[in-house]
Amino acid sequence: MHPKQQRESFRSKQYTGTTSGMCDNYLQANMIILPKEYAFEFLLFCQRNPKSCPIIDVLEEGVTTPQIADADIRTDLPKYRIYRNGQLDKEVTDIKDKWRADFVTFLIGCSFTFEKALIENGIRLLHQEQERVVPMYKTNIPCEKAGRFEGNMVVSMRALEPEEIDKAVKITERFETSHGSPVHIGNPEEIGIKDIDNPDYGESISFDKKKRTPVFWACGVTPQNVGLNVKPPIMIAHAPGHMLITDQLEEK
Amino acid sequence: MHPKQQRESFRSKQYTGTTSGMCDNYLQANMIILPKEYAFEFLLFCQRNPKSCPIIDVLEEGVTTPQIADADIRTDLPKYRIYRNGQLDKEVTDIKDKWRADFVTFLIGCSFTFEKALIENGIRLLHQEQERVVPMYKTNIPCEKAGRFEGNMVVSMRALEPEEIDKAVKITERFETSHGSPVHIGNPEEIGIKDIDNPDYGESISFDKKKRTPVFWACGVTPQNVGLNVKPPIMIAHAPGHMLITDQLEEK
Repeated sequence: MHPKQQRESFRSKQYTGTTSGMCDNYLQANMIILPKEYAFEFLLFCQRNPKSCPIIDVLEEGVTTPQIADADIRTDLPKYRIYRNGQLDKEVTDIKDKWRADFVTFLIGCSFTFEKALIENGIRLLHQEQERVVPMYKTNIPCEKAGRFEGNMVVSMRALEPEEIDKAVKITERFETSHGSPVHIGNPEEIGIKDIDNPDYGESISFDKKKRTPVFWACGVTPQNVGLNVKPPIMIAHAPGHMLITDQLEEK
Repeated sequence: MHPKQQRESFRSKQYTGTTSGMCDNYLQANMIILPKEYAFEFLLFCQRNPKSCPIIDVLEEGVTTPQIADADIRTDLPKYRIYRNGQLDKEVTDIKDKWRADFVTFLIGCSFTFEKALIENGIRLLHQEQERVVPMYKTNIPCEKAGRFEGNMVVSMRALEPEEIDKAVKITERFETSHGSPVHIGNPEEIGIKDIDNPDYGESISFDKKKRTPVFWACGVTPQNVGLNVKPPIMIAHAPGHMLITDQLEEK
């Protein structure tokens, strides 16, 4: 389905599930909406932490149509999360009645893009084969602070065979708007992950620890996580896995 | 002289002239200070126009020491310009008594860095040989707008021999924090420059139009120019050519 049609199916609430695997070749994006009062510090945070927060578009205050998608961001994602004072308030399927003229919207690259490139290059991704959401972990790797925004990096993990790792590094480092090369390879404890089978977000995957090595990439959940630390009166984000599908073709 | 000592000579007002040619190998930066109310839109403008406005550091509100220089930006530049409502108010040698807790400071790459690389690669720069400030021109090339910040690009011009141009492109495209590759080669009129001998900023240089081709690079005067269009109640910048000398070595 073309992105425009797909987004219309969300707008009409025909479909409200995950966007994983939809609209092949089109860039999907994490979305975070904050009141303008927070916008400068958050944009600076993203600029200082490009691996976790690769900015692909910013909608100035009150703007509801991105440059990279002929969409209305208030209705064209399948599911949204509304956070108040750093706590999840509720999940909704549109945010029309929540919209404010001082809202600034940030669109941030996601790993769907580089996963496709890995598979096309013959690298098997176990979470896809096991039909699970990729496992994500809080780490002890500090992000670079910007104003009130500070916290540690969240990473996603893919368990690879040793001979695939070099290739995976080379492939993903090209995707600057999709988290780039891995931030750690091999030892979960070194980056503060105590139990690889107990991810903080997403789902656990089964893999043979003797045959595969865990490889960690910066994850787009980082800015959401750091945003919540600041406890803004309101922050709106896509529900995990329920991304904005853009009209922009993925970089090759 | 080491950057720290050099900056102390500005702080003590022993020297208040241009920083051109000072502290070889250390990065110099354009500086723009705006009230926080403008900071988000200006940062977004820079991010959308990286060739004109390559951000090398941002100092959050009230902060006076950059990450890339052990300096006090209120005293450690040789000369400052204070603009009010889009008009030059005065030139001063420090801004201690003008400082406000809501000031946000932006440091932006400058072309001193790539000029050095050009010379090291055997390319003669006429404005240096003629001891003039590089000629700069307003163009008809629109910048990408961000909020209230909009306007056309300002470019600097270096007249090169035809066989030097390819090399100059290759050298400068590596300097992403120093304006990168040229934005136009050859025809000044095509980018809205009516008289190459009458620059809008800097000084005119003499060159044989039959033997040399004008090559244009995005220029760090662009953000100052665009900033003034917005007519902020106050905006402070370095005086042209009187840059912040940082402690950071230039990229190679």
